[in-house]
Amino acid sequence: MRLSRYFLPLLKEVPSEAQIVSHQLMLRAGMIRQSSAGIYSWLPLGFRVLRRVEQIVREEMNAAGAHEILMPAIQPAELWQESGRYEDYGKEMLRITDRHERPMLYGPTHEEVVTDIFRRSVRSYRDLPVNLYQIQWKFRDEIRPRFGVMRGREFLMKDNYSFDLDLAGAMRSYDNMFMAYVRTFRRMDLTAIPMRASSGAIGGDMSHEFQVLAATGESQVYYDVAFEEFDFLAAVADEATVEHLKGLYAATDEEHDSASCPVPAERLRSGRGIEVGQIFYFGTKYSKPMGATVAGPDGQEVPVEMGCYGIGISRLAGALIEVFHDDAGIRWPESVAPFRLGIINLRPGDAACDALVADLEGKLARAGVEVLIDDRDESPGAKFATMDLIGLPWQAIVGPRGVKQGVVELKNRASGERQELSPEALLGRMTA
Amino acid sequence: MRLSRYFLPLLKEVPSEAQIVSHQLMLRAGMIRQSSAGIYSWLPLGFRVLRRVEQIVREEMNAAGAHEILMPAIQPAELWQESGRYEDYGKEMLRITDRHERPMLYGPTHEEVVTDIFRRSVRSYRDLPVNLYQIQWKFRDEIRPRFGVMRGREFLMKDNYSFDLDLAGAMRSYDNMFMAYVRTFRRMDLTAIPMRASSGAIGGDMSHEFQVLAATGESQVYYDVAFEEFDFLAAVADEATVEHLKGLYAATDEEHDSASCPVPAERLRSGRGIEVGQIFYFGTKYSKPMGATVAGPDGQEVPVEMGCYGIGISRLAGALIEVFHDDAGIRWPESVAPFRLGIINLRPGDAACDALVADLEGKLARAGVEVLIDDRDESPGAKFATMDLIGLPWQAIVGPRGVKQGVVELKNRASGERQELSPEALLGRMTA
Repeated sequence: MRLSRYFLPLLKEVPSEAQIVSHQLMLRAGMIRQSSAGIYSWLPLGFRVLRRVEQIVREEMNAAGAHEILMPAIQPAELWQESGRYEDYGKEMLRITDRHERPMLYGPTHEEVVTDIFRRSVRSYRDLPVNLYQIQWKFRDEIRPRFGVMRGREFLMKDNYSFDLDLAGAMRSYDNMFMAYVRTFRRMDLTAIPMRASSGAIGGDMSHEFQVLAATGESQVYYDVAFEEFDFLAAVADEATVEHLKGLYAATDEEHDSASCPVPAERLRSGRGIEVGQIFYFGTKYSKPMGATVAGPDGQEVPVEMGCYGIGISRLAGALIEVFHDDAGIRWPESVAPFRLGIINLRPGDAACDALVADLEGKLARAGVEVLIDDRDESPGAKFATMDLIGLPWQAIVGPRGVKQGVVELKNRASGERQELSPEALLGRMTA
Repeated sequence: MRLSRYFLPLLKEVPSEAQIVSHQLMLRAGMIRQSSAGIYSWLPLGFRVLRRVEQIVREEMNAAGAHEILMPAIQPAELWQESGRYEDYGKEMLRITDRHERPMLYGPTHEEVVTDIFRRSVRSYRDLPVNLYQIQWKFRDEIRPRFGVMRGREFLMKDNYSFDLDLAGAMRSYDNMFMAYVRTFRRMDLTAIPMRASSGAIGGDMSHEFQVLAATGESQVYYDVAFEEFDFLAAVADEATVEHLKGLYAATDEEHDSASCPVPAERLRSGRGIEVGQIFYFGTKYSKPMGATVAGPDGQEVPVEMGCYGIGISRLAGALIEVFHDDAGIRWPESVAPFRLGIINLRPGDAACDALVADLEGKLARAGVEVLIDDRDESPGAKFATMDLIGLPWQAIVGPRGVKQGVVELKNRASGERQELSPEALLGRMTA
């Protein structure tokens, strides 16, 4: 992709409404534009990140045996009257009346819709367990939306729903999602601390929230250092592992009491956290009132045991920037970067520079490496600043002096390390 | 994927509300479930098709130089007041009031939002042309939604918006999209006939709609046989080609008059058509009232020339079934099939059958071939009927007799041709 033909509207000034660094950087780097309070358009660079995050989540959900579906944004009010939540939700629910005066709503969550699908489709315990997920936009009419995509009104969630015959099955589903979650965040280079949580408006008996560590996080969290030492990607998702992780101490400052904390001081860590996901076991809270039953082994109808599991996809795009940034801009980890490499052509119009850039562009495209080329007619300083701001993991600088000597400069955005190497060596590094 | 663990709720009865074959088959094959009138959930099999269609559209839009963004579903009413369309749209627009009593709406289209993004981002003619697209759910509150996903209220569209300095540029953008459209539909094995159209609520000066030919289509269309002979995938997207295609005769029966038709009878074809896309040039209809201007080469501010370009993604999932089905069910073309191959294990539990199926499953997965295995404890007849109903392009039948002889039976769903071949030969065919 060539920047001269890309749609990357950078902002020089920090918009005053942006209070936190991820919001500021997403606006400055042309990733998003506000449409109305708490509602954003995702521009090409931001959209690519959203897609990367979404794809990691999707792969881990598929690997965990969940099936992807897509439920509608607009839901009928009747389903919420059936579950008894229609009045509970208050003003955060965006209520709508259609042309036939039927009460509808823009779904803030989908327990009712998925329970309705289940009860119309599944009859026997032999078809269990079922685990369905979707990646869908939701709406919560926050009274004071702020912090950009971290707390928007229209936001993208991954939400799973599990259906089991009994408590033991439901716990297996819960634990399976628990492990999928720690893996998912780890794949984005995030350390996520699972901690016991209250289940709020979703309701239920057991819940964990996942807090990723970020210096600018919204809450203070305390946790056993074992979380940092644990290899989430290599871990086997067996019962013992889940029990080990569930048993490790972790608490927000509201719950934490240093006097009664079971972890010795030398093994206790503390930091700021951002909540990026939550999982719930809520048993028959929805299946009972909505009549979602299956015939059990003895032929008796039993309401299914359910859980639900959410990850904030659009929130993660912001949270990742809270974790990965410095004064110059964003520092994307490779796992979610919008492009892997940025090539700065210091002198567009110089035949040798243009030829080398075009050669690299073609070879990298064929190798499937995503590259953004700054071929704009701007000063070197402006190009360096742009590349640091948008935060691609690698920068290659092609200038007349280097081209003559047969070298380009490669810079690692995160470490700032620079080295000169031949174009062939650059290709080798990027396609390895 | 194993059917015993998949979520595929088949229906034996044709639901009475489903009047057209695609709606009936999508319900019977467990692709969708109605949530409320004209609003559907996409179940795993249907979702896979939606994704395949979406991906073909995305690839062709990217190849045509458009950049993917994502605009919000919920839009502020003010933008529509600015463009002057807020009152025009009538009851088809789903109007919403948020908790602060601000008038909002669920976007039926996004001209206003994209024009707002553009005017806040682009200052100079040097940044043109710009072509932005999104794949986003829209809502039109149809008075009588019907025909399943072919005419739903909540529906998935791909919509592009082009911005050019002048009419000549806008015509290049239009022609570029015109060619991308015929290619896109051809890649889905559809013959799309472009025809001059009125521009309706979008407004503007030039428009083409694209009708795909289907025996059960909604309108009668007449067209030059040259459309059938034209190789859309091989065609160069140059001006001469577009002018040639635009010049060919095509009309719906409302416009067609056999007395005045310029095409000789032996070169005139007629068939039923389903509209799956429309493109519009509308000049400054939005840029003028909304102040979307750029500085031209002479420094003067000029309103940009715009066009917009829509493809009904969820509608296409239905339209494809209207084109590709028979009495037994769907016959997916390979380009959009949810899985390429279905393997029927005639005797799950038989060690030799199970071993061969598992071996094929592993090898096909490693080769990236998407396979659905019917390992249910059902009669052979039920399995054959299911496989025909869901319409995967290829079926491999593994039974005890064949396994002993070292053969499986391969059936082509579209032609009905069957042949016995060795498992190795099957792998060769499927991974070729």
